[in-house]
Amino acid sequence: MSRSLLPSKGMRDFLPREKAMRERVMTIIRDEYVKNGFMEIETPIIEDIDRLVNSDGGENTKLIFKILKRGDQFKESVKQEMNKSLETIREEGFTDLGLRFDLTLPLSRYYCNNMNDLPKIFKAMQTGYVFRAERPQKGRFRGFVQCDLDVIGDPTNFAEMELIQAIANTLIRIGLKDFKVKINDRRLLLAMIAYCGYAPEEASTVCIILDKADKIGFDGVLKELTKEGFSEQQNEKLMTLIDQIQKEGLEGLRAFDISPEAIESLNQIMSVINTVSKGQYTIEFDFTLVRGMGYYTGTIFEVAYSSVGYSIAGGGRYDNMIGEFIGQNVPAVGFSIGFERIIEILKEEDQKFEVAPSIALVFSNEDDPAALMAYAQTLRTKYSSVSLFRKEKKFGKQLERFVKFGVDYFAIYSSDESSIEIKELDNESKGSN
Amino acid sequence: MSRSLLPSKGMRDFLPREKAMRERVMTIIRDEYVKNGFMEIETPIIEDIDRLVNSDGGENTKLIFKILKRGDQFKESVKQEMNKSLETIREEGFTDLGLRFDLTLPLSRYYCNNMNDLPKIFKAMQTGYVFRAERPQKGRFRGFVQCDLDVIGDPTNFAEMELIQAIANTLIRIGLKDFKVKINDRRLLLAMIAYCGYAPEEASTVCIILDKADKIGFDGVLKELTKEGFSEQQNEKLMTLIDQIQKEGLEGLRAFDISPEAIESLNQIMSVINTVSKGQYTIEFDFTLVRGMGYYTGTIFEVAYSSVGYSIAGGGRYDNMIGEFIGQNVPAVGFSIGFERIIEILKEEDQKFEVAPSIALVFSNEDDPAALMAYAQTLRTKYSSVSLFRKEKKFGKQLERFVKFGVDYFAIYSSDESSIEIKELDNESKGSN
Repeated sequence: MSRSLLPSKGMRDFLPREKAMRERVMTIIRDEYVKNGFMEIETPIIEDIDRLVNSDGGENTKLIFKILKRGDQFKESVKQEMNKSLETIREEGFTDLGLRFDLTLPLSRYYCNNMNDLPKIFKAMQTGYVFRAERPQKGRFRGFVQCDLDVIGDPTNFAEMELIQAIANTLIRIGLKDFKVKINDRRLLLAMIAYCGYAPEEASTVCIILDKADKIGFDGVLKELTKEGFSEQQNEKLMTLIDQIQKEGLEGLRAFDISPEAIESLNQIMSVINTVSKGQYTIEFDFTLVRGMGYYTGTIFEVAYSSVGYSIAGGGRYDNMIGEFIGQNVPAVGFSIGFERIIEILKEEDQKFEVAPSIALVFSNEDDPAALMAYAQTLRTKYSSVSLFRKEKKFGKQLERFVKFGVDYFAIYSSDESSIEIKELDNESKGSN
Repeated sequence: MSRSLLPSKGMRDFLPREKAMRERVMTIIRDEYVKNGFMEIETPIIEDIDRLVNSDGGENTKLIFKILKRGDQFKESVKQEMNKSLETIREEGFTDLGLRFDLTLPLSRYYCNNMNDLPKIFKAMQTGYVFRAERPQKGRFRGFVQCDLDVIGDPTNFAEMELIQAIANTLIRIGLKDFKVKINDRRLLLAMIAYCGYAPEEASTVCIILDKADKIGFDGVLKELTKEGFSEQQNEKLMTLIDQIQKEGLEGLRAFDISPEAIESLNQIMSVINTVSKGQYTIEFDFTLVRGMGYYTGTIFEVAYSSVGYSIAGGGRYDNMIGEFIGQNVPAVGFSIGFERIIEILKEEDQKFEVAPSIALVFSNEDDPAALMAYAQTLRTKYSSVSLFRKEKKFGKQLERFVKFGVDYFAIYSSDESSIEIKELDNESKGSN
C-alpha cells in the first residue's frame, strides 16, 4: 500500500465498527456528566500561541503543534528571522496559533472570558480532541480525546465529592464496575516531606520516588532516597510516617501534627463517598499518589481499574491556575476520564452496548426504487439503521460481510411486501452460499 | 476586557445553552444519517500537507492552516530556505502537516486506505470540524462543522435518490419543513453551453453568469453575457433554450438532443423522490444551479429553505476525485448539511427540542452532604440533569439565573425528604426575592 494513503503520523482513521463503539461510549459519558449537573461547553481547538506557550502546561508546552503565520505576516517573519544567526532562529518566530494540548487551559481562558454569563460556582464539562507532537509509539497517539469535568469557584471540598460521584456514576454506566478511587492531598504530601526535614526544593524529587512505591515497594523507595543522597535521618523519619500510615491509615498521621486541615478534608470526602457509593466502588487514601502536573494545590485523585496497571481517570484541585488570567484567586477542581484507555479496556473485554438493531435490505435492479425506498422508510421506525444493498452474485459472501459490519438482520425485498421475511444474521449467514 | 481572553480570531467559545442546542441538533443529524443506512467514520483533523495542497480543493487550498515543522526538521528547513532569496521563500518549505479544509479529501484518502474493510458500495457519514484561514467576517468562522453523507462505488443514480431521501428525512426531523430540493446535472449544463456554441474554456464564465439568474433575472444574464463579449448568436441560442425550459421544464430540452442521458437521469430521480417524499417536500429541476466546486461531474443538488436566501444543504456527483489516489475510477456522490446555517435558522426560529427536564437542587451548608448527594442521585433517574447549588442570600436573583441557564425545575433540599417540594421554574422565579 502506498505510504501516502495512511493517516499522518500518530493520527488515526476509525472504521465504522470502532467509530460506532467510540460514539456510544462518548454518548454515555456526556449524558451522565450532564445528568450529574455539569454544563457542557465548547472551546476551539486552535488557541493563540502565546497563551499555549506561556501556560502551566509543563512538559506539554514542548509538544505543541504550532501553526505557521500566513501571507504577509509569514513574509514579515521571514524578513525578521533571516537577520538572525541560524542558532537563534526559533519556531516561535514563525507562528501565531497552535493546537490545544489539553482542555484545562482553554477552560481557564473560557471561564475568565465568559464569567458574567456563567453560574457563580460553575460545573463545567468538556470533551474533545487535544494534540501533542509526541514521538509516536504503540498505544500513544498525537491526537486523542479527553473528557473533563471541572468545578470552578467552589473552595469547599463539596466540589471534590461531587466530582468523584459524577466520575464513578459514569464509569458504572459504561460497565466498568471493578474500580477503586485513590485519593491524596498535595498539602499533606508537602507537609510530610517538610516534617522529615527535606528542603522544599527537594520535594519534587522525593515525590517522584514515592510515586514508584507500588512498583518498587518501600524498601525500594528507601534505597532510591539513599542513592539520591538524602540523609539517613530524613529517610528514617519518612519510613516512620509510612509505618504509621500502613498501620493506622490516614489517622496514623494525626499524632505528628501534619496538615490537620488536609487530613480533615480527606476524611470528610472519604466518609461521604463511602455513604453515597453504596458499596458499588471503594475510595481509599493513598499517600504514594503524587500525579505529575505541577499545578495541583490540594486534593488529588485517580481511579485504578482492576485489570490494568494504569489509572483510567485522574484529577485534582488547582486553585492558582485559572486566576492567572484575571489576576485573582479562583478555586478549581477537575477530574477527567481517560477516554482512549476506557476504549482499550472495553475492546479487550469485548463489551456490548445495547442499541436498536440494524437491518440490511437487499434488492435487485428489477425492483422499483420508489417502492423499495418507501418500504425501507417504514422499517426505519423500528430499526436503528436500515441500509440498502444490491444483491450480489455471491450472496453468502455478501451476508458474511454484513455480519462483519455489525448488521443484525437482513431481508430480501419483494414487491409483494407481505412476503418479505426478516431474518436474523449470524444464524442465517452460514450455509446459504 | 483584556483582548487575550477572547478566542483566537474566527474561533468561537460556546456557552452552555448554545452548546446544548448544537449537540441536540448534531445528535438528531447523526442518528438520522445512521437510520438511513450510512456508516459513521472518523478521519483525523490533521493531514499531510502535500495531500492537502495537491488536492481538488480549488480556492480552499489557499486557506489551509499549515503546521510548522518541529525540532530538527524545522532547523533543516530554515537552513535550506535561508539560502533562497526573500521572494522565493515559501510557506510550504516550513510545513509538513495541515488542518483539513473539508471532509471530502480525508474521506477519499480514508476510502482508498481502508477499501478492503468496507462494503463494496460504501455509504459513509462523517461529521466534524474543518478549518479555513479566511478573513473573518460576520457569520463566517475559521473553524466550522460539516455533516457529510457520501455514497462511494455506486455508478447508478440510486445513490442520488438515497442521498436526497436521507438529507430530507434529517431536515424534517430537525423541524425544518418548508424546504425545496433543487437539482441539475453538470453534463446537461455543459451540453447546453456546447450546443449554444460557447467554447469549452468559456463554460465556467457562462456558468458563473447563469448562477446569478435568481438575483439578476434572465435579462441580467443576457446583459452580462453580452458585456463579457459573447456573440449575439451564442447568447440568442441560450435564451431560446431558457425559453423552452421555462415553458416545458426539463422536457423542453428533449427537442434539442442535449445530453439525453442527463435528462433521463434527472427525470428518474425526480420521479422517485416525488413518490417517496409523500408531499412533505418538493424537488425541482433548476438549470441555473451551478455549484462552485470544480470537481462535480454529474448530478448536482442543493436544498433551499423558504425563509433564507442561501442553501442549507448541497452536493453532487464527483466520479473522478477518489480514484486519483489509487489511479482508477471510483464513482462517488456526496450531499452535506450546512450545520452552522441550520443552527442560525433554528436560533432565529427559537426552536425548542424536547429533552427530559433538568432540576436545580438548592442546599445550605448545614445539610449533610452524604444525604444530599444520595437524594440528588434518586432524582437522576427522572431528570436529564440534577445540579446542586448552595442557596445564595439573594435567592430570587439565583432563581432568575437558573432560568437563564435553561433549568426547568428547582427544589430546596431538606433532611425531611418527604417535605421537599419540586417547583417549576419560569413561574416561581418571580416575586420570591
